[in-house]
Amino acid sequence: MIFDGKQLANKILDSIKKETNSWPQKPNLAVISFGDEKNNSSYIVQKRKTAESLGFGFNDYNYSKDDFSKAREYLNKIVKMESVSAVVVQMPLPAEINNSILNVILPEKDPDLLCDRSVGAFFNGHSLINPPTAEAILDVFKEENISLLGKKVALFGYGRLVGRFLVPMLIKEGATVAVIDKDTPKEDAKHISLCSDIIISAVGEANLIKSDMVKDGSVVIDAGFSILDGNIVGDVDLESVKDKISLITPVPGGVGPITVARLFSNVAKLFKYSTKFKN
Amino acid sequence: MIFDGKQLANKILDSIKKETNSWPQKPNLAVISFGDEKNNSSYIVQKRKTAESLGFGFNDYNYSKDDFSKAREYLNKIVKMESVSAVVVQMPLPAEINNSILNVILPEKDPDLLCDRSVGAFFNGHSLINPPTAEAILDVFKEENISLLGKKVALFGYGRLVGRFLVPMLIKEGATVAVIDKDTPKEDAKHISLCSDIIISAVGEANLIKSDMVKDGSVVIDAGFSILDGNIVGDVDLESVKDKISLITPVPGGVGPITVARLFSNVAKLFKYSTKFKN
Repeated sequence: MIFDGKQLANKILDSIKKETNSWPQKPNLAVISFGDEKNNSSYIVQKRKTAESLGFGFNDYNYSKDDFSKAREYLNKIVKMESVSAVVVQMPLPAEINNSILNVILPEKDPDLLCDRSVGAFFNGHSLINPPTAEAILDVFKEENISLLGKKVALFGYGRLVGRFLVPMLIKEGATVAVIDKDTPKEDAKHISLCSDIIISAVGEANLIKSDMVKDGSVVIDAGFSILDGNIVGDVDLESVKDKISLITPVPGGVGPITVARLFSNVAKLFKYSTKFKN
Repeated sequence: MIFDGKQLANKILDSIKKETNSWPQKPNLAVISFGDEKNNSSYIVQKRKTAESLGFGFNDYNYSKDDFSKAREYLNKIVKMESVSAVVVQMPLPAEINNSILNVILPEKDPDLLCDRSVGAFFNGHSLINPPTAEAILDVFKEENISLLGKKVALFGYGRLVGRFLVPMLIKEGATVAVIDKDTPKEDAKHISLCSDIIISAVGEANLIKSDMVKDGSVVIDAGFSILDGNIVGDVDLESVKDKISLITPVPGGVGPITVARLFSNVAKLFKYSTKFKN
């Protein structure tokens, strides 16, 4: 079965709309990118469209990557705006912009969990929200009534936005998690993968997961993203695995749209718990 | 080989002493416990002795667990004291004291990485210090010239103070890490453990790791701690595994003393980078 991520995304967006419709004020998302805007334009357009469909405020800002202190100053100004309820900085940052800039974001305006305090609250187990992509992946299991209790998960990739957040979330659901990263020997990756009930890949390397690495009946979540011959592709060679697996999320149309929906459910949640909403 | 943790701890303490001897001012550690002090007294005594041997300042405080807001107020007062350069709260906290109290600690005075900002800085990859127990475990590998690159590690336990911190540290060193936690079926734990080059256990369950779970020649790090028949014991049945393994850290006398040494190297590092030292 090829999982329809757009359908689940629409379901989540509908429930956000239903909840927020009656709110006297709506959340307002600011998206900031540094350097060449073209690198991020498709993501930004997608967020704008979603914000508009929900009736949320939306603004995007693009700044030069060549003056770090200016970049920091601009970000700080946006974060402090009363009208802005949530701030997203497009990742990855260009090499000229140090990650420390993300600490300018306030945790109560941080739907992507980028700043230290948000990340710390998450790992200390008392964050109000989960990171959008990791949450989107758990959504797929919930939607399909797939329990993680006692299951073996092979997690490919331990990156900033997905892998590292997934480890505690999967363990909390009762899974046994093996993390395969760039230094894992190919034969170990294959062995672990073949022993696993569930494969989650968030690397960004086309055709990383092939048929000979996948156990019959396994569940495969493809959270990878790269460009191959001008096309957006995931980490999994879908054609070669699709007859072996019980469920796979495709790229595009799988985890991606659900992640956008989850970003906006975080934006709504943060707004709801902000002082502003209570007044 | 049974690894001598005390010897490595003394080596680390000697190097701290050597560095800090010439400092015009010395760091000052405050240790705070809530509830019955007896639960923590052996740890506190150990820290006091070590502080004295280094010429560092040391104070311990014990407060009632029955008034959370008072407990918070006391902790806040100690953290803000100019004379106090580092604060440790004895974990685990009694059930009456919510973990959120740890956010009163300032990151620049947090050698155990307890508050959100310290934990976030660690997971965001820009912490000045590593958590003492996790650092102590890596120390053992370094001391014995054991490379983690391409090695398979079975990590038993994903707790607040050890397991969760070890995952990124081990991956950074090039290891492939499988996390075994309380929901892992026994047979899976055994299979993963037998396939691993290195076993690290930080659960607190006597005799969790037995001979039939250990591959010949493997390295076993026992970071567990519990009381069995009045004795301090680790997670590993040392007698049953000692003829199979190439190296094991015993309990007591293994990771424990190195952890105390690493706590004090963190205290020294934080003091060194504080404004106070620079003046």
